[in-house]
Amino acid sequence: MTKFINSTKNRVEVGSLEVSKFQSLINSQFKDAKKVLIVDENTQENCAPYLITAFEGLEEAEVIVLPTGEPNKVMEVCQQVWEAFTKYGIQRGDLVINLGGGVVTDMGGFIAALYKRGLRFINIPTTLLAMVDASVGGKTGVNLGPYKNQIGSFAFPEITFCDPIFLKTLPERELISGQAEMFKHAMISSKEHWTELTKTDFYNINSDLLYDSIQIKATIVDNDPTEKGLRKTLNLGHTVGHAIEGFYMDEHQYTHGECIAWGMLVEAYIALELEMIEKSEVNEIERVICKMFDEISLSPDVFETIISLMKNDKKNNSSKINFSLPTKIGAVVFDQQVEEEYILKALNTIFNKA
Amino acid sequence: MTKFINSTKNRVEVGSLEVSKFQSLINSQFKDAKKVLIVDENTQENCAPYLITAFEGLEEAEVIVLPTGEPNKVMEVCQQVWEAFTKYGIQRGDLVINLGGGVVTDMGGFIAALYKRGLRFINIPTTLLAMVDASVGGKTGVNLGPYKNQIGSFAFPEITFCDPIFLKTLPERELISGQAEMFKHAMISSKEHWTELTKTDFYNINSDLLYDSIQIKATIVDNDPTEKGLRKTLNLGHTVGHAIEGFYMDEHQYTHGECIAWGMLVEAYIALELEMIEKSEVNEIERVICKMFDEISLSPDVFETIISLMKNDKKNNSSKINFSLPTKIGAVVFDQQVEEEYILKALNTIFNKA
Repeated sequence: MTKFINSTKNRVEVGSLEVSKFQSLINSQFKDAKKVLIVDENTQENCAPYLITAFEGLEEAEVIVLPTGEPNKVMEVCQQVWEAFTKYGIQRGDLVINLGGGVVTDMGGFIAALYKRGLRFINIPTTLLAMVDASVGGKTGVNLGPYKNQIGSFAFPEITFCDPIFLKTLPERELISGQAEMFKHAMISSKEHWTELTKTDFYNINSDLLYDSIQIKATIVDNDPTEKGLRKTLNLGHTVGHAIEGFYMDEHQYTHGECIAWGMLVEAYIALELEMIEKSEVNEIERVICKMFDEISLSPDVFETIISLMKNDKKNNSSKINFSLPTKIGAVVFDQQVEEEYILKALNTIFNKA
Repeated sequence: MTKFINSTKNRVEVGSLEVSKFQSLINSQFKDAKKVLIVDENTQENCAPYLITAFEGLEEAEVIVLPTGEPNKVMEVCQQVWEAFTKYGIQRGDLVINLGGGVVTDMGGFIAALYKRGLRFINIPTTLLAMVDASVGGKTGVNLGPYKNQIGSFAFPEITFCDPIFLKTLPERELISGQAEMFKHAMISSKEHWTELTKTDFYNINSDLLYDSIQIKATIVDNDPTEKGLRKTLNLGHTVGHAIEGFYMDEHQYTHGECIAWGMLVEAYIALELEMIEKSEVNEIERVICKMFDEISLSPDVFETIISLMKNDKKNNSSKINFSLPTKIGAVVFDQQVEEEYILKALNTIFNKA
């Protein structure tokens, strides 16, 4: 059995793709549409053959393979895909199916949304991160130099299918990366969920846990679709995390989840500096993050660079740096303007232990 | 005195910019915002100095100069502008002002709409074409090779100001180009408006005539914002016209208005072939178009290329070519699928008179 996320704008079905609406949708609404299947090098090998053989109507799909990884999430790749669309004669009524991680669903959604001002698309995320994060909210886009998702638009897929079967194809580190967003959802919404997650064996993530995590995000996004307020809580960990990720982008040394997890920890320490959170809560956050995520190393002489990257973050309305900060596990406040000295202190506490 | 277009989604003010809401908007809503003024080489010289000196609060604006002309309406130029935005530290709350013709408002709107998933922007069209056409409907975008506006999104400016003062800066041919869309609006909506236009001295276009033309488009777009039906009538002349324009893009030999005017004439002849329109109506259309617009030359050996360019038009849902066709001056039907032989006949009638 599958379950639909309760959301006004996001149509997400969680559970086995084989018993989902996927096949009937292809057979009905998209019967006469050309299909374009966008994959990356990983999902081309590990997921596309299953999709094409297990479902009818995809035999003739044009398959477009994006180069794998965040450094390839750039406009130049989109341009090449649009040129391929033109070559294939793709028209407004045709369908794009994005099969892959966040790079594929973010960039594939962007490609679909802009081609002829909007093709319809279906997302089938194959990584934990893409299932719990990118499946809700309609954010699509590409990077601009070191700045993540600097160019983008809001565009909603017809529907997103989250099937845990694809998680079996993930390397361990990718699976762990996705946990960062699940812990983030727990940190924003409830201590109980946090506790449940710390007890879970992440090699056996089931549909129920997926469902709960996605539902937390969907509820927040529904209540603030244009990110005027509440939705900013979802930026927890990302002000610092995106800066670290941007800094290391060329080396591709750390996963998104690792950057966000350590970003959450830095932000918890900032909250502690500002006396917004108890030390015991920060200790629990630190315990879990240190246990689950590979340690990130940052040398003190790059702290200023990291801070300057934060300043260019999309979330800022002025030159001040805007944070969402935890007040306990299960509660976050947004629109917190923080002086650089507190950020520097927190970075020193965590990364400059020598 | 200025007048506001009556529209649910498009905020357009027609008349003198100096007595419009422009200054008060800058002083209030965008008081603390950084301003970016996007111009092209022409408006940098002829319009920007007036704007910057006549209005307060624009002295510090960053000025970005786009290379002039349709062949530069491409993603590579957008990328350069986004990189400049990043350098200038432009943030979500900042303001883009697009001052120029359709290339500037289409591409400037696109640039604003995608940067950090959406900056607010104000359009000040300076050509007749941009005032009567691009000012309504929220279409933004860039070209992909020979395919016009193939990549784009729907994004509405905060407000568009149409001030006929800028028309004084236009070369004659540009001014005449804009008339094509005005005649198109008349052909779609009313014979009376058509007659009025044929009597007008186009070197003295006034706010009232501008207003009426824009209002026709706004009413159509409001009634069908997503182009499911009625709005397709606005594609009159464009199925053929865009193909001609795409074909000649590198040479930049004909204006958009010339291509659309001759496109309307070809489409009138297609309607005649299909016995949808009286010969006397086609004669009147031909009389006006031949009188007002420079003749386009197309050799019979490129007709097949022109038809293949039509097939890739955004307006097609399948491989068939979809037209909006006139049934008389003042009435148009949409979703007309036409066989290639009739298109070929009409092209021969008009361009192969030897």
